[in-house]
Amino acid sequence: MINVGILGATAYTSLELIKILLRHPQVQLSYLGSRRADPPPISTIFPSLRGACDLKLSPLDPTAMPGDTEILFACLPHTVTMDVLPRFLRTEIRVVDLSADYRFSSGDEYSRWYGIEHKDPDNLPYAVYGLPELYGDLVRKARIVGNPGCYPTGAIIPLAPFLKEGICESDGIIIDSKSGVSGAGRKPTETTHFPECNESVHAYSIGTHRHTGELISILSDVAATSVEPVFVPHLIPMDRGILTTAYATLKKKTREERLLEVLRRFYDGKPFVRVRADAPIRTKDVLGTNYCDVGCKVVGRKAVLVSAIDNLVKGASGQAVQNMNLMLGLPETEGLL
Amino acid sequence: MINVGILGATAYTSLELIKILLRHPQVQLSYLGSRRADPPPISTIFPSLRGACDLKLSPLDPTAMPGDTEILFACLPHTVTMDVLPRFLRTEIRVVDLSADYRFSSGDEYSRWYGIEHKDPDNLPYAVYGLPELYGDLVRKARIVGNPGCYPTGAIIPLAPFLKEGICESDGIIIDSKSGVSGAGRKPTETTHFPECNESVHAYSIGTHRHTGELISILSDVAATSVEPVFVPHLIPMDRGILTTAYATLKKKTREERLLEVLRRFYDGKPFVRVRADAPIRTKDVLGTNYCDVGCKVVGRKAVLVSAIDNLVKGASGQAVQNMNLMLGLPETEGLL
Amino acid sequence: MINVGILGATAYTSLELIKILLRHPQVQLSYLGSRRADPPPISTIFPSLRGACDLKLSPLDPTAMPGDTEILFACLPHTVTMDVLPRFLRTEIRVVDLSADYRFSSGDEYSRWYGIEHKDPDNLPYAVYGLPELYGDLVRKARIVGNPGCYPTGAIIPLAPFLKEGICESDGIIIDSKSGVSGAGRKPTETTHFPECNESVHAYSIGTHRHTGELISILSDVAATSVEPVFVPHLIPMDRGILTTAYATLKKKTREERLLEVLRRFYDGKPFVRVRADAPIRTKDVLGTNYCDVGCKVVGRKAVLVSAIDNLVKGASGQAVQNMNLMLGLPETEGLL
Amino acid sequence: MINVGILGATAYTSLELIKILLRHPQVQLSYLGSRRADPPPISTIFPSLRGACDLKLSPLDPTAMPGDTEILFACLPHTVTMDVLPRFLRTEIRVVDLSADYRFSSGDEYSRWYGIEHKDPDNLPYAVYGLPELYGDLVRKARIVGNPGCYPTGAIIPLAPFLKEGICESDGIIIDSKSGVSGAGRKPTETTHFPECNESVHAYSIGTHRHTGELISILSDVAATSVEPVFVPHLIPMDRGILTTAYATLKKKTREERLLEVLRRFYDGKPFVRVRADAPIRTKDVLGTNYCDVGCKVVGRKAVLVSAIDNLVKGASGQAVQNMNLMLGLPETEGLL
Repeated sequence: MINVGILGATAYTSLELIKILLRHPQVQLSYLGSRRADPPPISTIFPSLRGACDLKLSPLDPTAMPGDTEILFACLPHTVTMDVLPRFLRTEIRVVDLSADYRFSSGDEYSRWYGIEHKDPDNLPYAVYGLPELYGDLVRKARIVGNPGCYPTGAIIPLAPFLKEGICESDGIIIDSKSGVSGAGRKPTETTHFPECNESVHAYSIGTHRHTGELISILSDVAATSVEPVFVPHLIPMDRGILTTAYATLKKKTREERLLEVLRRFYDGKPFVRVRADAPIRTKDVLGTNYCDVGCKVVGRKAVLVSAIDNLVKGASGQAVQNMNLMLGLPETEGLL
Repeated sequence: MINVGILGATAYTSLELIKILLRHPQVQLSYLGSRRADPPPISTIFPSLRGACDLKLSPLDPTAMPGDTEILFACLPHTVTMDVLPRFLRTEIRVVDLSADYRFSSGDEYSRWYGIEHKDPDNLPYAVYGLPELYGDLVRKARIVGNPGCYPTGAIIPLAPFLKEGICESDGIIIDSKSGVSGAGRKPTETTHFPECNESVHAYSIGTHRHTGELISILSDVAATSVEPVFVPHLIPMDRGILTTAYATLKKKTREERLLEVLRRFYDGKPFVRVRADAPIRTKDVLGTNYCDVGCKVVGRKAVLVSAIDNLVKGASGQAVQNMNLMLGLPETEGLL
Repeated sequence: MINVGILGATAYTSLELIKILLRHPQVQLSYLGSRRADPPPISTIFPSLRGACDLKLSPLDPTAMPGDTEILFACLPHTVTMDVLPRFLRTEIRVVDLSADYRFSSGDEYSRWYGIEHKDPDNLPYAVYGLPELYGDLVRKARIVGNPGCYPTGAIIPLAPFLKEGICESDGIIIDSKSGVSGAGRKPTETTHFPECNESVHAYSIGTHRHTGELISILSDVAATSVEPVFVPHLIPMDRGILTTAYATLKKKTREERLLEVLRRFYDGKPFVRVRADAPIRTKDVLGTNYCDVGCKVVGRKAVLVSAIDNLVKGASGQAVQNMNLMLGLPETEGLL
Repeated sequence: MINVGILGATAYTSLELIKILLRHPQVQLSYLGSRRADPPPISTIFPSLRGACDLKLSPLDPTAMPGDTEILFACLPHTVTMDVLPRFLRTEIRVVDLSADYRFSSGDEYSRWYGIEHKDPDNLPYAVYGLPELYGDLVRKARIVGNPGCYPTGAIIPLAPFLKEGICESDGIIIDSKSGVSGAGRKPTETTHFPECNESVHAYSIGTHRHTGELISILSDVAATSVEPVFVPHLIPMDRGILTTAYATLKKKTREERLLEVLRRFYDGKPFVRVRADAPIRTKDVLGTNYCDVGCKVVGRKAVLVSAIDNLVKGASGQAVQNMNLMLGLPETEGLL
């Protein structure tokens, strides 16, 4: 069994990660690091883990982590990871970071969207953007994987094939995403107070959401030209799931069947992308799974691309394990089906 | 038009009260008192009121209230009302208090359940328990009305006729209530964080909920003997509504039709109690209304009584306006249908 | 009191309409027509109406309707209204039709989207599109008002000012709408089965939804040029409400404040449109009201316009009463605040 | 790998069962029998299975089932199983029946609650009630296991220890259960129509629900005396989960800690029962798991027992796999953690 650890073990992404790792046949969880002063068993924080995982929390300190830990997942908040991680990187350990801190290749780009100078710019060149369907080969050898944001995962997967193959225009792209509330994290706020967000929908951070930076960076890389989409996230009264509806202008009139072929060919051999033409793309069909379902329609000169993911699985912890599998040379789907 | 005011204008009960009062043909809202230091317009707190009510918040100070205000509603939290109200009572004003502070006739009883000495014991003898279906005559003449708690409203209405007429035993009564989340108030907590309470049900404060005191006090008064029910509230993933399932032992075998007759006769002429045998009692059927729907079944020697209310209307602000109507000599249903 | 009637009284729109009309100080409901063979009281169909409205259903027959009925609301399904209505139009009565049957000025246009020949083309010229904010003057004098669809109401209100004033391009408009489930009507289907649509989001009828026809027709009229938006509706796990996010290309770089001014000036004096810059536009803030809240942001060269309505009120029955008020010369807001 | 099959493969319980079996390391799914005439792949019925399980449906015919199938799960509706199963029982196969048809030892008892004569009384003596925590030893050797109903599972687990040990009275027991909507099955009805059951709670089948028969039969067996509880199920607006609040009279005053000890001792070594005193018992904590969480409180002379299960896992398909594990001599938790 391969030892793995988690930094920031009390986040929702960590809970999901623990559940996935407990089922994984090749790894065992040996370290749960947390900022909390007097660390209780994790099952006190998450009663659902009682009986299944009674590991205690440990301090965020490399000496508290078993020496043979091979993979470390960081579930800390943005801006905290880059503060904590460097002292863990002194060992041989390899890292999957679920925060945004290692998703950009340049500290400047990071600063632009996160409003703070990057504290660990020296390690950025060793970090790979962990969307396995696009960068799997790099992930296999990476020291640090910047695990993608939930919204970018749902948007990049349907858009990438058409940008890469020059089928749609690189400008005028609109990404309208609808997310469940768990994406907002565990901290209670007015926005996530049940009587405020239940039975309601609203758009937020229109054009200013931090994931926009990630979208620009990766979509531009894929298209090999500058892509600056309009990105508008919405909060939906459900626990989990992101549905993304992306609108792109087709360079020339194209039939739906042709677009489906492009998608199928692009994701051929990618076990977690399901291109579907048979039924509506629904977040419910991917709930609790690492799948990204993708569909498309043509309306006039616009391609309407729809994707569904579980924000806590393919949008976070499942994808992190998918990356770990690649890093360890395991089958990509190990522990994820 | 009769001037009315509200103390504690930023609570959910206040929002509901404002909406009801805006529709009431005989009163106008002239004062919104709040503890907030720099009082903004109420529509900044509750954007849903924009255009409908742009009154500004004022300090919790009698001199800030128009002198001709006739009825004052207190929507302050428990233990705060009794601190604030006395200085308003120096005038002729009459009060409907939506907190628990004036629901008990004795300060000792209050202390037992609220864990704090009553600060205004002198005014308790002038306070009436404002369940109009039982104490309407007293309410008409009352100086202070202690508006009932949401759970007691839902439980007392179905149980009272059978206790009063000695049809069921006074001991062994079980009250199992299911409430929407707005009952927990506007302050975000872990319990009311959407990803925690959505798609989940749990019981809380089993046998220790403060409304137990109110239930004991009023049910004992109605039965003219000591009644100590087991009361268990549950949190349900919906905004509003309380369904109460009460179980009482019948003194002798009784047919359902007979129980329905008792209910119908007891609530004859009470416009807001609907005794129904035709369909399941559902909270949805009373949503946004001041109705309390009541039904009953007989299972062996147990009467199973079910009631549904909207916790913010019949369980709080609607009932407060019903009380105001009685106090002002207006038709009981004015502004409430 | 003015007598009004309803055709198709067992629809969700009818339930909402009855509730609004019961509160309206100037009208009384005197006729509830239904296709059901053995008509029960309406409160048997909708238990929430018990006590509030115990009118019986009557046949869909003009002779069953009181002769002095002045306004008739049609809540029948599309394609049924045009079959039933002509025999009611033989009298002096004026009609607000909540179906799509009288929303188009030409039978051909209707056929294109509803796949059936129009059965009452002779009356189409007398029908007015009942969006009071745009066509109020025509509504006042209309014999027949085609009450707008819920989606078009939510999309036209934010887009109209910018199209009318030539601020945004007429092509490339995208309308991404998110609707609660009540919009799908009362008939249980697999799509609306709770365990299928709860905790899930999906897009449907991409580019083919029938409201697209209405959007094309009205937006083109407003813009005085052909407008063919891409319209994608989504089903959201909530009872009521539509949030519309519309994307339009600005002809030139424009600041957000300028767009807000355009909106405010255009809807100056329109009591049910609230232009808001202070907080996110949320469906919850308009729940149960006839308001349409509107906001806007600028992202690059795109205007992102957001609106929120209650699909059963401003999107159907509230707007129908607003139209009735105009037709009867009553204040536009009568019975609606 | 051990071959297993499913009869009635298009039920929600079957979907859940397939997902669990796909993860089980020791079995493989080789047969999906269905009443549907022209059987499509199961992933057409349940799009969530695409890629994970593309088995085709087969007729409900033993010749369509691979000869080496060892365990057959029946997910057919009540009254259908007993019609279909006998022809499968001609082989060596062992059966876990998720319907009610083999839960009673006598055909008469079955008839009383299901209103139809039992069609396979000859096999009833070979059937065992499959609640592994109580009847595990019998399950191991059983030919046919009648997998318990969801409500009885949630009620029997907390009550059994106290009835068995004579700590609470056998009469006057009240079982108040709150269930998510998936328990109602896949067929759309008015009750399960989203706009009807969302944001609402109601009680149904008060005292007449069919699971009452099962509760009487098993609780009486456990108590070794007649037990006739009052059972009232409620429908809650969520997908999954049952919270059961059971009220029983203590024979003598007993402290909560003593009751917890009884529970802990009774379920010592039972991996799926978690006795918890640390936090509220919530359905969310058992979502997607085979756990039954149990807690208790003492209020006067009443024991208030609370349990939480996922109705589709411990209340159906997870428990069925737990039974299968016992029948095959595998570890009880195999494939279930």
